[in-house]
Amino acid sequence: MENAHFRHKKGQKSQMRSVVVLSGGVGGARLAYGLAAQLPPESLTIVVNTGDDFIHWGLHVSPDVDTMMYTLAGLSDEAQGWGLQGETFSSLAMVGRYGGDTWFRLGDRDLATHLMRSEALAKGDSLTRVTGRLCDALGVKARVLPMSDDVLSTMIDTKGRGTLSFQDWFVRYRADLPVERVWFKGDARPTMQVIHALKNADLVIIAPSNPYVSIDPILSLSGVQSVMREIDAPVVAVSPIVDGRAIKGPLAAMIRDIAKTDASAQAIALHYGPLIRAMVIERGDEVRAADQNELAVLATSTVMKRLDDRIALAGRVLAFAESLK
Amino acid sequence: MENAHFRHKKGQKSQMRSVVVLSGGVGGARLAYGLAAQLPPESLTIVVNTGDDFIHWGLHVSPDVDTMMYTLAGLSDEAQGWGLQGETFSSLAMVGRYGGDTWFRLGDRDLATHLMRSEALAKGDSLTRVTGRLCDALGVKARVLPMSDDVLSTMIDTKGRGTLSFQDWFVRYRADLPVERVWFKGDARPTMQVIHALKNADLVIIAPSNPYVSIDPILSLSGVQSVMREIDAPVVAVSPIVDGRAIKGPLAAMIRDIAKTDASAQAIALHYGPLIRAMVIERGDEVRAADQNELAVLATSTVMKRLDDRIALAGRVLAFAESLK
Repeated sequence: MENAHFRHKKGQKSQMRSVVVLSGGVGGARLAYGLAAQLPPESLTIVVNTGDDFIHWGLHVSPDVDTMMYTLAGLSDEAQGWGLQGETFSSLAMVGRYGGDTWFRLGDRDLATHLMRSEALAKGDSLTRVTGRLCDALGVKARVLPMSDDVLSTMIDTKGRGTLSFQDWFVRYRADLPVERVWFKGDARPTMQVIHALKNADLVIIAPSNPYVSIDPILSLSGVQSVMREIDAPVVAVSPIVDGRAIKGPLAAMIRDIAKTDASAQAIALHYGPLIRAMVIERGDEVRAADQNELAVLATSTVMKRLDDRIALAGRVLAFAESLK
Repeated sequence: MENAHFRHKKGQKSQMRSVVVLSGGVGGARLAYGLAAQLPPESLTIVVNTGDDFIHWGLHVSPDVDTMMYTLAGLSDEAQGWGLQGETFSSLAMVGRYGGDTWFRLGDRDLATHLMRSEALAKGDSLTRVTGRLCDALGVKARVLPMSDDVLSTMIDTKGRGTLSFQDWFVRYRADLPVERVWFKGDARPTMQVIHALKNADLVIIAPSNPYVSIDPILSLSGVQSVMREIDAPVVAVSPIVDGRAIKGPLAAMIRDIAKTDASAQAIALHYGPLIRAMVIERGDEVRAADQNELAVLATSTVMKRLDDRIALAGRVLAFAESLK
């Protein structure tokens, strides 16, 4: 295992002309925010998981796409970790009064997104097109691509409650049920735009998202992994595990339940296997990462608390990736 | 023209066992509120115009049904004349940011109604059933019946802008374009429940709503007028015109444009013709009402500013109707 340190030089833009990020929600969105500050807009494409998408109050909700969009627009509620700053919940209260479902806390401003999206989808627009329009309206310059315009639903086989949809497991049961298996329901293809972006990538970054429920849905789409193997561009994963814990969410417990091993950068490396050429891990996690043949590793500070952290980490990831060529 | 004065005795409930009100939005809802205070819940059925219904942001909006529901539940914004008390507009602001339609000011709490309704309709529920459930949830005891479960759209032929949908004319153009003709698009039947209620009515009240755009849509439904002529129950109209002016909305101008006459109680009486047996008009409007053969008239105070006014007027209308038997 090769270990290297790369520092981002202030004001120096990366030479990468086409960076593709595979991402879930919060963690990936934060890295994407940093990358958007380091790259010209036309050089950044983010392929976002839609396996969590679901229909709520009759509307198409796309949680990871929305988190990505809101974060890149600087509108997300950073303290809370989801939703929009200054959000209100008047609709939710009234829905509760009607006896409707309130377990998923849709805010009033967030609702506007789902309304605009659902109306456009009902008129025959693709999720890719409507996402593009919503991003334009919010001033998001990077290209945000839903992984698919088809329906693919992440399903969780739990111990005790059988098979649950992702949102049921994640929100209604607070991810508090042990997971036996994650699988994907539906016959979805990646979009042309996703395949095109991957084929033309100088660099593919797997964001520090949950591999099982955020990245695997993307990798499960026919053609995505084969394109990633064919291209010369390095594939670099950023570890979502820091010091044996997931920065956010149920990942550590999932690794124990599914991979039957402790949560570590190594577990992430083993999960992606030969698909990745390099990995960015938290400094101090090198021991846990152990030896991976031919896997280049950058050990650095990966926690993105402040906006500056995101930009700095993005710079280090890009510099590290350039060194791999 | 017979003229009579009837006073509501405090605490005395009407003996009417089955009162059916034909109604549009605000004015009719206020009278219905008063009637709900005067009658046992099972004795009051309100048939509400749905000719103004439209699809907005992909949702089914039913303005008159909602005004009726909110008013009877004590939730309507009385000062503003439409919508809900304490309403917020976060979704609307965000829709505006997305470049969506904001000419119809849907509030966040109001939105919950349209979401619940649209979801239920998409699942195959009828408008009648979902309205019943929403009313139950809000504690509305009287029976609120949409006039039809089918689509009937009120269309306005204007001078200058051609044919507009009702909402386009009323909200977007603020009812500020002269009207040449009002007509109804669609092949809608009244519901079984509406016909059943009319057949079993002891009294039918035409609320002080706009005859052209609120009451005529109901009367245009096949079977409604013939049932109203067959039954023994008196049909009593409450005039929406006071001293030559409409209490609310564009009615006075519409009477001039369509009936080519000044706005008056007489114009309303002429409009309904032999369909009504009696009329409640504002005291002082007797002269304008002029002679209508065999039309019984109660001249009284018809303006419903305060909640008390609604209850008092309802009591006088009921006592007057009882005297007609």
